[in-house]
Amino acid sequence: MVQGATNWNTETTEEWLQQYIDDWVAFYRKHTSDGEVASYIPVLQEANADHLGISIVGKNGTNIRSGDVDVPFTIQSISKVLSFIVACMERGIGYVLDRVDVEPTGEAFNSIMHLEMKQLKKPFNPLVNAGAITVASMLEGKSSDQKLESLFNLLEKMLGYRPHLDIDVYESERDTSMRNRAIGYYLLEMGYLEDDLNITLEAYFKQCSIEVTIDDLARIGMILANDGFDPSTEEEIIPRQVARLAKALMLTCGMYDASGKFAAYVGIPAKSGVAGGIIALAPARVRDEELPFIDGCGIGVYGPALDKQGNSIAGIRLLRHIANKWDLSIF
Amino acid sequence: MVQGATNWNTETTEEWLQQYIDDWVAFYRKHTSDGEVASYIPVLQEANADHLGISIVGKNGTNIRSGDVDVPFTIQSISKVLSFIVACMERGIGYVLDRVDVEPTGEAFNSIMHLEMKQLKKPFNPLVNAGAITVASMLEGKSSDQKLESLFNLLEKMLGYRPHLDIDVYESERDTSMRNRAIGYYLLEMGYLEDDLNITLEAYFKQCSIEVTIDDLARIGMILANDGFDPSTEEEIIPRQVARLAKALMLTCGMYDASGKFAAYVGIPAKSGVAGGIIALAPARVRDEELPFIDGCGIGVYGPALDKQGNSIAGIRLLRHIANKWDLSIF
Amino acid sequence: MVQGATNWNTETTEEWLQQYIDDWVAFYRKHTSDGEVASYIPVLQEANADHLGISIVGKNGTNIRSGDVDVPFTIQSISKVLSFIVACMERGIGYVLDRVDVEPTGEAFNSIMHLEMKQLKKPFNPLVNAGAITVASMLEGKSSDQKLESLFNLLEKMLGYRPHLDIDVYESERDTSMRNRAIGYYLLEMGYLEDDLNITLEAYFKQCSIEVTIDDLARIGMILANDGFDPSTEEEIIPRQVARLAKALMLTCGMYDASGKFAAYVGIPAKSGVAGGIIALAPARVRDEELPFIDGCGIGVYGPALDKQGNSIAGIRLLRHIANKWDLSIF
Amino acid sequence: MVQGATNWNTETTEEWLQQYIDDWVAFYRKHTSDGEVASYIPVLQEANADHLGISIVGKNGTNIRSGDVDVPFTIQSISKVLSFIVACMERGIGYVLDRVDVEPTGEAFNSIMHLEMKQLKKPFNPLVNAGAITVASMLEGKSSDQKLESLFNLLEKMLGYRPHLDIDVYESERDTSMRNRAIGYYLLEMGYLEDDLNITLEAYFKQCSIEVTIDDLARIGMILANDGFDPSTEEEIIPRQVARLAKALMLTCGMYDASGKFAAYVGIPAKSGVAGGIIALAPARVRDEELPFIDGCGIGVYGPALDKQGNSIAGIRLLRHIANKWDLSIF
Repeated sequence: MVQGATNWNTETTEEWLQQYIDDWVAFYRKHTSDGEVASYIPVLQEANADHLGISIVGKNGTNIRSGDVDVPFTIQSISKVLSFIVACMERGIGYVLDRVDVEPTGEAFNSIMHLEMKQLKKPFNPLVNAGAITVASMLEGKSSDQKLESLFNLLEKMLGYRPHLDIDVYESERDTSMRNRAIGYYLLEMGYLEDDLNITLEAYFKQCSIEVTIDDLARIGMILANDGFDPSTEEEIIPRQVARLAKALMLTCGMYDASGKFAAYVGIPAKSGVAGGIIALAPARVRDEELPFIDGCGIGVYGPALDKQGNSIAGIRLLRHIANKWDLSIF
Repeated sequence: MVQGATNWNTETTEEWLQQYIDDWVAFYRKHTSDGEVASYIPVLQEANADHLGISIVGKNGTNIRSGDVDVPFTIQSISKVLSFIVACMERGIGYVLDRVDVEPTGEAFNSIMHLEMKQLKKPFNPLVNAGAITVASMLEGKSSDQKLESLFNLLEKMLGYRPHLDIDVYESERDTSMRNRAIGYYLLEMGYLEDDLNITLEAYFKQCSIEVTIDDLARIGMILANDGFDPSTEEEIIPRQVARLAKALMLTCGMYDASGKFAAYVGIPAKSGVAGGIIALAPARVRDEELPFIDGCGIGVYGPALDKQGNSIAGIRLLRHIANKWDLSIF
Repeated sequence: MVQGATNWNTETTEEWLQQYIDDWVAFYRKHTSDGEVASYIPVLQEANADHLGISIVGKNGTNIRSGDVDVPFTIQSISKVLSFIVACMERGIGYVLDRVDVEPTGEAFNSIMHLEMKQLKKPFNPLVNAGAITVASMLEGKSSDQKLESLFNLLEKMLGYRPHLDIDVYESERDTSMRNRAIGYYLLEMGYLEDDLNITLEAYFKQCSIEVTIDDLARIGMILANDGFDPSTEEEIIPRQVARLAKALMLTCGMYDASGKFAAYVGIPAKSGVAGGIIALAPARVRDEELPFIDGCGIGVYGPALDKQGNSIAGIRLLRHIANKWDLSIF
Repeated sequence: MVQGATNWNTETTEEWLQQYIDDWVAFYRKHTSDGEVASYIPVLQEANADHLGISIVGKNGTNIRSGDVDVPFTIQSISKVLSFIVACMERGIGYVLDRVDVEPTGEAFNSIMHLEMKQLKKPFNPLVNAGAITVASMLEGKSSDQKLESLFNLLEKMLGYRPHLDIDVYESERDTSMRNRAIGYYLLEMGYLEDDLNITLEAYFKQCSIEVTIDDLARIGMILANDGFDPSTEEEIIPRQVARLAKALMLTCGMYDASGKFAAYVGIPAKSGVAGGIIALAPARVRDEELPFIDGCGIGVYGPALDKQGNSIAGIRLLRHIANKWDLSIF
């Protein structure tokens, strides 16, 4: 056991954890005032900037939750991890990685410049918009709904229910996200897209508009932490190699242009969305019984007040605190 | 134990491992012909392009070595990890990170463009040249030799001997590396340097010219894998938080502009140098007795034939093979 | 009179000029094989790569023509000069220049990168696509046809007839020019457009698809050369200040990323189009009677085989030859 | 004669001109407070920000001067025009243009980014620092003084006296201009330099530190306006083709990243320096006797308060006013 770490192995661990999390959510809630709710999609501005919530699901099913746990929000860029997973499952990893690279960019999520400047043969990675739209073009299906069918099936398998779209957000994104259309036409001209642009963008805007809760994110995170294996059903939901790839991508590119700092200071795979959600996870790394809860756990965070890079400002600080305290870092 | 993984726990493990490594070094040695020896420093061109060697040191001291194990080579960019560690130890993490960021760049190691283009207030990260030169300026001392004193002390503590400079390489770098001088003057003008430019560059060229072997790299890697703690002496050689930071940086930025791909396909912290060396490591992550060797091991690789990104072409493939087979990935 | 220049002042000048031009068109026609017909719009590929023609109109009405003089072609980027003029006439120079700069870019005509990289508040200039689309958004009218009404009126006034659209080219551009749509959506998001994007792009694609001849270009050039004043009707067709501005823009930005070289080697305002047309002109600069023809003349060139920058390869060489021989340079 | 233009052809023209210029220098002197004296070279900061002076030399020798006419200042970037001319005279135009392009950049004068970003085979143009340093490397001679011998000879021929270096400025530039050293090392590494870097930079810093007056600039401008021909001695001092090339470069690239705006609003070849000087000229374009003074005149301006682009803020406005009033534009 790591020196100085909490002794989890007592009968009161769960109460203790609950108290601990409650304290720190209360503490970091004040930090929400340092950030601002996303404004680039009008409907996102209606979120309550004070909200902060966290849900942690252990591989044994234990669930610790605190703060604004029941506020639904749209998944936004976190969906990029899922569509990448689905594309790999449908097309094969080789096919997908031939069409999108996995390199960090050092650029903002919505950069179009890099594509032109470096005369790339494929977008930088699936977690920036250019790459995610390219991934969306690879999803099978002749309509945007068909394209998302496998994604919804995967979500249903993991969550036990089929999430729905937030139609207002979807329409708002579809009608206002001109930068994504710019990126889309650029990709189209360069020959990067595997499908019709309008259907692709429709699918992309829809996948971003899926409504989730932090419990959902925590559960997805837990399955990724366990390499795609669901401990409760003992089923492999995502192929191990795909889950590994997704986690590596999250670590190197998941937090926009603060990914390097998140890896350095928090040290776990995570992906944020502009609505304020963050999915994070602690890869299963020990097999003894000392850390039954945090090993292989998934974490969902919601806090719509964002920092300049577009990440939940209080969410990142809360994660950093917990990860350091509980020694979640993979390094 | 991961399904399908080797059963390490037999009395013949070591012989078996030796055989295994020998086979794969022989196999990947043929791949050296796909790469080319570095030419940007004249003296590096004299390396034997066929060479390939690997050394693995476990935290219990076990050492498996194969191939060209005794060829000394200059540490080159791998020294960037060490000078970053020393700067953090001398100045404190906060001081260093105020002066150099930890974000991946998406650019080549010797890019100067990014600094101007993004009007950065500090270089991208300590593992690209601009950041490493900035780090070298932070090292304490009034001459380049004084600046490197702590670095040599650290090496001596880890290796049990004091490595020396390859004077030919040092002079060759000093006299030919005009790009690094360009970067240096740019940094100087921007006010990023904490010390005289000439002394800083001298220190930088010297640190790159330290002669090491793969055994040295493996041993340093093993200590990093164990968070700076040397299991044989039970001494903390590098502060835990600094070691963690260094490993996160290696994972996100260690392999030039193939860092994302290395994280995705290999999944362990590593840093390469243009002379053909790679340091890699598998962070200590389990505490039971099933994997006594590979958990918390360090790896040194040498193969001077490089790919287009400047990484040992056969070395990367060998590492990928072993990491996948032995499930070293941190994800 | 410039030493060594032709003595224009004989009764046989016109025959002599005709012979001269015929000789050099024949000579430079061979150069068409060094270039290639534009391929980015499918229908443009049908042009005859061997074609080369020139028409020169003096302010006294003299017209010297040679080569493939009667081949109609689409005006393409040359229309950018005209739409800029019309926008200035409709909105005022101040209004237009508040929304588009007049700086050369050093980038290709269809670059989108610069807008993002330099965080510009307005596109670089009206003669690159981003600027030209912005200018098209400023044209008055609620439909693309209404937007182009003033442009067609201006053309009719200058040419004595109303040119028509090449519908095939228009539809081809509209349906294939994804880069322009990418630029358009980028401009829309940045708030640079003064009108609906689809109407703006429709107007832009239409203006590019206007069919002209080299006689038309020569006549427009002659009117610009005379500061917007038509010597035959003694009418000011374009306000003097607008004509001057247009000519300055043509000189600094008219020939894509070869504009600097064209200014240096040829030295007269010119604008090329990707269909192979070039409009050029020699500003009226002398008032005596020694050079009755070339002073204040307009030049139209057609040669669809393009160089790498997108300019008529033989056309540029022919212009350079004539400009140097006749001392047309404004410098 | 252009409608509305001044009637020059009276016996009182000179007095009238003097009065006119005096009035406008007084008017624009107030504008100096909108700018700031250059700070990047410490010694330049000592200039008097209120200063404004102009000198105009006609080809007949008439000289109109007003304001702070006798303040000496360093020529700075204006020397780039002269070193380019000398290099062309020593090496031939072809040799020089094989090693430096003549395209506007859209970037600041001291940009290093463009060289890397566009993977150029030669610097953009001789009037940005990268190009000017490359030009300095082409000057003949084994020391910086020898390299500048021809430049000083040319100046002596044009001015009737041999200007001297401002040693303080030279030493200040040499010791503080780290960006130029960065550019120099970059050029050296890329193989663009034709001579030793230190000698080249020494020559470059020296050429920038030549002390001149506005009368000197006006006289040089007048000779360029007359294609390198000195009307007073009837001697060709600069080959006509070289003078033409220099003027084209000045028009497209002479005023840093405001070159396009200067061409559009003022419309004459000009080059500014960071000490506050501007050389400008009105190419000889008419041969009749109506405009005996301004046709083929040279203009020197001094006003050390600079705008954001590094051009004399009051100087540009004064030039614009005069150029428009007197119809100096070449367009």
